[in-house]
Amino acid sequence: MDDDGIETDAWAADEGAAADSPIPASSAWRPGDHPGHRQFLNVGDLPLEADPVGTLPGVTLAYETWGELNAARDNAVYIAHALTGDSHVWGPAEPGHHTGGWWNAMVGAGRPIDPTRHFVVSANVVGGCQGSTGPASPHPVDGLPWGSRFPYVTMRDMVAAEIALADHLGIDRWRLITGPSMGGMRAIEWAVTVPDRVGAIAPVGSAAATTADQIAWSTSQLAAVFADPNFRGGDYYDAADGEGPHVGLGIARMIAHTTYRSEGELAERFGRSYQGAGDPLGRGGLFSVQSYLQHHGRKLARRFDANTYIRLVQAIQSHDVGRGRGGVETALARYTGPALVVAVDSDRLYPLKNSQLLDAGLSGSNGVKVVHSPVGHDGFLVESGQLNAFIAEFEAGL
Amino acid sequence: MDDDGIETDAWAADEGAAADSPIPASSAWRPGDHPGHRQFLNVGDLPLEADPVGTLPGVTLAYETWGELNAARDNAVYIAHALTGDSHVWGPAEPGHHTGGWWNAMVGAGRPIDPTRHFVVSANVVGGCQGSTGPASPHPVDGLPWGSRFPYVTMRDMVAAEIALADHLGIDRWRLITGPSMGGMRAIEWAVTVPDRVGAIAPVGSAAATTADQIAWSTSQLAAVFADPNFRGGDYYDAADGEGPHVGLGIARMIAHTTYRSEGELAERFGRSYQGAGDPLGRGGLFSVQSYLQHHGRKLARRFDANTYIRLVQAIQSHDVGRGRGGVETALARYTGPALVVAVDSDRLYPLKNSQLLDAGLSGSNGVKVVHSPVGHDGFLVESGQLNAFIAEFEAGL
Repeated sequence: MDDDGIETDAWAADEGAAADSPIPASSAWRPGDHPGHRQFLNVGDLPLEADPVGTLPGVTLAYETWGELNAARDNAVYIAHALTGDSHVWGPAEPGHHTGGWWNAMVGAGRPIDPTRHFVVSANVVGGCQGSTGPASPHPVDGLPWGSRFPYVTMRDMVAAEIALADHLGIDRWRLITGPSMGGMRAIEWAVTVPDRVGAIAPVGSAAATTADQIAWSTSQLAAVFADPNFRGGDYYDAADGEGPHVGLGIARMIAHTTYRSEGELAERFGRSYQGAGDPLGRGGLFSVQSYLQHHGRKLARRFDANTYIRLVQAIQSHDVGRGRGGVETALARYTGPALVVAVDSDRLYPLKNSQLLDAGLSGSNGVKVVHSPVGHDGFLVESGQLNAFIAEFEAGL
Repeated sequence: MDDDGIETDAWAADEGAAADSPIPASSAWRPGDHPGHRQFLNVGDLPLEADPVGTLPGVTLAYETWGELNAARDNAVYIAHALTGDSHVWGPAEPGHHTGGWWNAMVGAGRPIDPTRHFVVSANVVGGCQGSTGPASPHPVDGLPWGSRFPYVTMRDMVAAEIALADHLGIDRWRLITGPSMGGMRAIEWAVTVPDRVGAIAPVGSAAATTADQIAWSTSQLAAVFADPNFRGGDYYDAADGEGPHVGLGIARMIAHTTYRSEGELAERFGRSYQGAGDPLGRGGLFSVQSYLQHHGRKLARRFDANTYIRLVQAIQSHDVGRGRGGVETALARYTGPALVVAVDSDRLYPLKNSQLLDAGLSGSNGVKVVHSPVGHDGFLVESGQLNAFIAEFEAGL
């Protein structure tokens, strides 16, 4: 549940000709598309935690790596992406990757996560739409997209697939697992599920368990996608360009994006200004903040898949590291390694309190590190200087 | 933008047989329905502030009164309802009024607003759906519902109609105008528009101008209604029962309702509990907070009109007491009478800061009175003891 950040700063300028072309029913990456830097691992059949289907057959993970695993195999860093992110953590937009790396500010020579020193790995999650098996992928029986047949997956299912990837790459133990928002959830699940394989975690703007408030915000988002007649219960992949569930997905994104920013930032940035010459008092005009949200709605529809959005939001709703483990405190106690818990002070979706609870439960955490930002949840991307300093210091001490 | 409060406490119990019956396309009150305690005033043609149409012809206001105007005509109190409220401030549910008075806790013998002492008046706003001229009303030319033809209205248009009502009732000057949320906006507009006719105001959980954040939250709400195929651009009044834009209106309400409550209350009240026996991990089950929001969505659709929702939300977006008056400060300076500004400390939709700005601009206000509540915006209804004490003390000093 976060934004890509890099997209948020040029909202008015970057809708050129592309904004007029119809959006494909799904903007999922498909086999046959340019792979970009993706590699693919066949994980085999993945047992599922919760869905009655029981097993997701023939799972593929799309992943990217940067740098080399050293001889001691102790320099591997896993970066876990958030809701609408993917494996393309670092690098430019290029064939196969419509957008540049979502954490370019964090990765690179001289940056906290440095491919000249680290073996950096990131995979698109199970259920995703950027190369890993998800609802837009072909069903093994009929070759048609999974669509409505794609099962409910949880954070633990995603991590189970990531564990298979680590096995494949010969990584017995990560030096560090980090990620923002939903990525932080997987870092926590990794630490609690296989503590011996986790050297350190750094969850950013995340939580040990999704709260009622977070579930509430996502409830209307799911409803907006379900209600789009072009969603067709999830079986929309044969729709013509422009006839997918883009309106519903866009509304979901508008709700989400509002939760990702702060009241103060929106006031400062937009106030009550109008977009262009159109007066919103009367018919036709928009307030700037309305135009901004509509832009972000359209933009997500142009690069994402609605079914993936649903399944990942449901996975976020499911997130509770304490489920079946005697509660959050007992679960977190399984992991005693170093932990860096980072929060943005103005985050109203994953408030500071969430991180304080996480910090309290992680014996290897030495207090929440607070990014000061007016921006809200997206502050972890906007205030890269502060965040990088926290991660760099923590990483250097490992 | 508020909830009726009285509905919020029994969400799980009060969906009986009625929940299974199909919802009419519009639940607007229509001529021919039981009037309940409504009286009707023909206001004539109403010049509009903003809409290009220019004038709304043949406007009717539905209003209710309690108590008697005294000989000095100095005991009249106007209660301005919020987004989904109406003239039925006080009294039971009864023919013509599906729900009990939305401010029963505030009005009554011995209460701060007391029909044995006051002449209490409340009207449904222009654009409303409970007896005043709104989108479901017959168009004067063809007798069909206004629907998509209904113009954009502003707070000032609503107040202009209320001024006509005051003229009709022989009220030169209100002893007090009070109301929550959108009602508070009209209290402020009254004070600035015709300060000589306003003895005192008491806006509760309100603001001098709607902020970017408030506009943002309402943007996705409007989009959800617009996107409902049963909305048909606003011309859905001939739809069969169950085929109106209820899903879109329900989604709008779910978003809104989340803004009306607080993170802490939702955590305390629902946490991650499941609704009934259904496990949300997998297909079919719901988290309790999801069920709660869905309930509130359905419930609003059963008692409200989607076009009215849109027009009133747009009116809220338009709210800026300083528009065309040299800004908020200059506008507020027009009114120097007594003002009681009340805020709920946990209100995340109309945060305390909104009320502080209002207080700072109103020379007759002596600091914001803060209702302490875990509930959020709806706290003004839930914490009636605290609010009543503020209003009673203020009223006694007038």
